[in-house]
Amino acid sequence: MARRNEHSREEIKAMAITAATALLSAAGVQSLSTRNVAKAIGYTVGTLYLVFENLDELILHINAATLAELEQRLVADCAGVRQPQEKIRRIARGYLQFAQDNHSRWALLFSHQLPQGTATPVWFVEKVRTLFELIEVPLRLLKPNGDPQMYRATTRALWGGVQGICTLAMSDKLRWGAEVATEEVIDSLVSNYLIGFLQG
Amino acid sequence: MARRNEHSREEIKAMAITAATALLSAAGVQSLSTRNVAKAIGYTVGTLYLVFENLDELILHINAATLAELEQRLVADCAGVRQPQEKIRRIARGYLQFAQDNHSRWALLFSHQLPQGTATPVWFVEKVRTLFELIEVPLRLLKPNGDPQMYRATTRALWGGVQGICTLAMSDKLRWGAEVATEEVIDSLVSNYLIGFLQG
Repeated sequence: MARRNEHSREEIKAMAITAATALLSAAGVQSLSTRNVAKAIGYTVGTLYLVFENLDELILHINAATLAELEQRLVADCAGVRQPQEKIRRIARGYLQFAQDNHSRWALLFSHQLPQGTATPVWFVEKVRTLFELIEVPLRLLKPNGDPQMYRATTRALWGGVQGICTLAMSDKLRWGAEVATEEVIDSLVSNYLIGFLQG
Repeated sequence: MARRNEHSREEIKAMAITAATALLSAAGVQSLSTRNVAKAIGYTVGTLYLVFENLDELILHINAATLAELEQRLVADCAGVRQPQEKIRRIARGYLQFAQDNHSRWALLFSHQLPQGTATPVWFVEKVRTLFELIEVPLRLLKPNGDPQMYRATTRALWGGVQGICTLAMSDKLRWGAEVATEEVIDSLVSNYLIGFLQG
């Protein structure tokens, strides 16, 4: 355990995010309390409140770290792939793999709700935007000069679609009524969608 | 409040499902306890346990009632529509509308998890199957004589996709990074997917 007052504000912040992410991975979302995080880094809850406004802000930082790691993984998954359709297919499969490998962290991205009336901070939205760009870039290669609104709807349709299939698969509901392989369902969604996108 | 011992086992079962559904709609999932349901129908918790094995079984019945109502609504939404693509588009929009109108009941369908190792009962899976048929029938009209496994993957891709977009929209995450209309995203998913399905 670290001795107190040894670290700068920024260091404590980074330590708290790392410790909270480890707690989440090891013991699930119910383990995420300021008390547990403070204990894990050897500081008091009071110190934690000096670097984060509240637990919600800490969770936003955990989620931003998850998004950053997801982005890295997806970029690696489609490195060297030139064909835009194949790039998007790889990203979709990589997304499923990441969700399966990091269930608690991935679930927290979508279960966390800011208090009513609180806007998502701009720095967090920017993180999300860089992920959308991963699919917007190949979509623009497939069909350049489209209406900006069309790309916005298209990226959200693909993301929402893949996200929905992943969520159902992880809660064992995709197999309601029939045996299906999650990868096959995701490939069906992405491949058929992209054919329509190209022709539309 | 009903007087005790006035009702048959089947009547108590039906009363409990109706009361539990009303509780869920009015006060959310946290209001769903055997105590609250028993109180609402004027019977003891003990009586409730005579007609349901446990709270999970009661929830399965609530969810089956939700699926039955959803099916009715979707059938009505596409009544008289002959073109298969348009039928599927109407079903997708009707699904979103139902989710928005019945948030708690729709969310419980997907958040409820049976205890590890418990299989979903056959009678419940059959209810789910009738819903898949709503989209499998028009898909078979569009492309007859396909491989059965292909229809299974296709129906799950469409359902998972629409389900994912609805879930993100309801938790206000579909708009992360850009303003988009949920209906537009769903139409983009379904229309492009069906073009690809027809050609594939």
